[in-house]
Order: sequence, then structure tokens, then C-alpha cells
Amino acid sequence: MTVTASESRDAISPEELVVWRMLQRAQVRITRLLEADLLVEHDLALASYDVLMQLSESPDRRLRMNDLAERVLLSRSGLTRLIDRLQRDGLVEREACASDARGLFAVLTDAGALRLAEATPTYLRGIRARFLDVLDTDELRQCAAMLHKLFPGSDV
Amino acid sequence: MTVTASESRDAISPEELVVWRMLQRAQVRITRLLEADLLVEHDLALASYDVLMQLSESPDRRLRMNDLAERVLLSRSGLTRLIDRLQRDGLVEREACASDARGLFAVLTDAGALRLAEATPTYLRGIRARFLDVLDTDELRQCAAMLHKLFPGSDV
Repeated sequence: MTVTASESRDAISPEELVVWRMLQRAQVRITRLLEADLLVEHDLALASYDVLMQLSESPDRRLRMNDLAERVLLSRSGLTRLIDRLQRDGLVEREACASDARGLFAVLTDAGALRLAEATPTYLRGIRARFLDVLDTDELRQCAAMLHKLFPGSDV
Repeated sequence: MTVTASESRDAISPEELVVWRMLQRAQVRITRLLEADLLVEHDLALASYDVLMQLSESPDRRLRMNDLAERVLLSRSGLTRLIDRLQRDGLVEREACASDARGLFAVLTDAGALRLAEATPTYLRGIRARFLDVLDTDELRQCAAMLHKLFPGSDV
């Protein structure tokens, strides 16, 4: 992209733009590789894996739909469609909350917990191979420090 | 996540998992912030901006749909829906390729080029504020080096 004189206050050098674009692609590429592994070995989309994992880490294996959408970084409508599929496969159930008129919960079933446990070694192996093993300890530390600067308080 | 003994060969420490999860969220968070700016100031989704930008950087401002889908990291069906919208707004046209039966092209219109030019200062200002200004020169260099290691040959 050519940065014209009128944008000089916000001018971005070609080198800076390259770093930005690489970062833009990094997450997508890793995500695609992880998803390919999960699909081939477990017929499970990465978004499905993320939903099962978030539920498994929550008290009583349940989350309000809005909270779940925020955690798995999906739109509310996208999550609704995904939960439809997971419910059809018996991995998740919907439950109304008796004490809370706002609340519709997604709940992990035993079958969902089992499916997650089966897929987790594949997921972890993917992260190790695609990301952790490529960087050395210092680089991982640098990476964490930069992410902390970019997103204070975001260490999940 | 608890890493059990059976996964010890691929064991991931809690610190490693935190770095991974932060990275997972970094791109999404920056993306959401950039998109919010573009929507508020130009009523333009980030995916639309990406499509217009990719076309503007291509010879004759046109790309085959499959190539465009790959570059903007959308599924072919997702891109088709997006191009429908952009075509309705007069920003992009579809053109068949006379010499290539496979080919349906997306082409940037003059109105699309103008819309892109209007939105670009907002986009660049967003990248500067959300990303480049937060890291110093050394950190940007480290970031680039890590991305090169993770994705050899990916410097766009």
C-alpha cells in the first residue's frame, strides 16, 4: 500500500506494514493447521473444540450463551448455529436457568466431555508442533511480554 | 486445562498455554478494534476493507474469486456473500473471463477505489494506535523475527 502525504501523521513504513500483515496471517494460519488436524483425526471443527473446552473449564460445565459467545469469540448468531449442531450430536445441551429469566445456558454433556478428552491430545500436539516448538524459551518470553503490552490484563 | 500423564510427550506447561491463548486473542482483539473504527467512521466492515484493498493492489484491480478468498482468509461461500453485498453497493463488480472458463473475477469499481481511499487513513491510524505505537523498534523487530520463524516465507 502506498502511504500518501496526506496521511503522513499516521504514516506507516513498508516494514511496519509487513509485520502487521504477518501478524494478521499468523493466527489464521495456525488456526487452519490446528483445525485440519482436529477435523481429520476427530471430525471436530476448532470452534466446536473451543466451545467444549470453555464449558469443561466452567463451574458445573455450563455457561450463559452470551458469556460463551464472548469467550469463543463468535457472534451470538454464529454461536447459536454452532450450539444447534453440537446439541444434535449430543455433545451439549441447552438449559433454562430457573432463577434467572435472562438466562439460557449451554451445558457440556458426558458425551461432550468424552469427545473433548479424545481430541485434546491432538490439539495440544498441534500447538506444540506449530507454535511452541518453533520458538525457544527466550522468544516465548518476548512473545508473552509483547502480548502483555498490547493487551494489558489479557493473560486469560 | 489439566494435562494428564497420558499426554506427557506433548505436555504443555500452564505458562506456555497462557502465551498461546494470548496470541489467539491478540489478533481477534486488534481486529475488533479496527473494525469498530471502520464501522463508525465509514460504515465499512473490516472484511470489506480487506477485499477492496486486495483488489486495489492487484493488476487491473481484479482477482479471481478463489485467489481473493485465499488472500482475505474467507471461505469461498463467505466471500460470495460478501461480494454480493459489495456489488449491491457498487463497490465491486463481477466479470467473467473470456479466455478462461474457470474464471469469475471480482473487480474494484471507481466507487470502490474512492471508498477505500476514504477509509484507509482510519485503518492506518488504527494499526498505528493499537499495534505499532505500543511496541518499540526492538520489539517490532523481535516480533517480525518470530513471525518469520513461525511462517517461513510468509512476509506477504
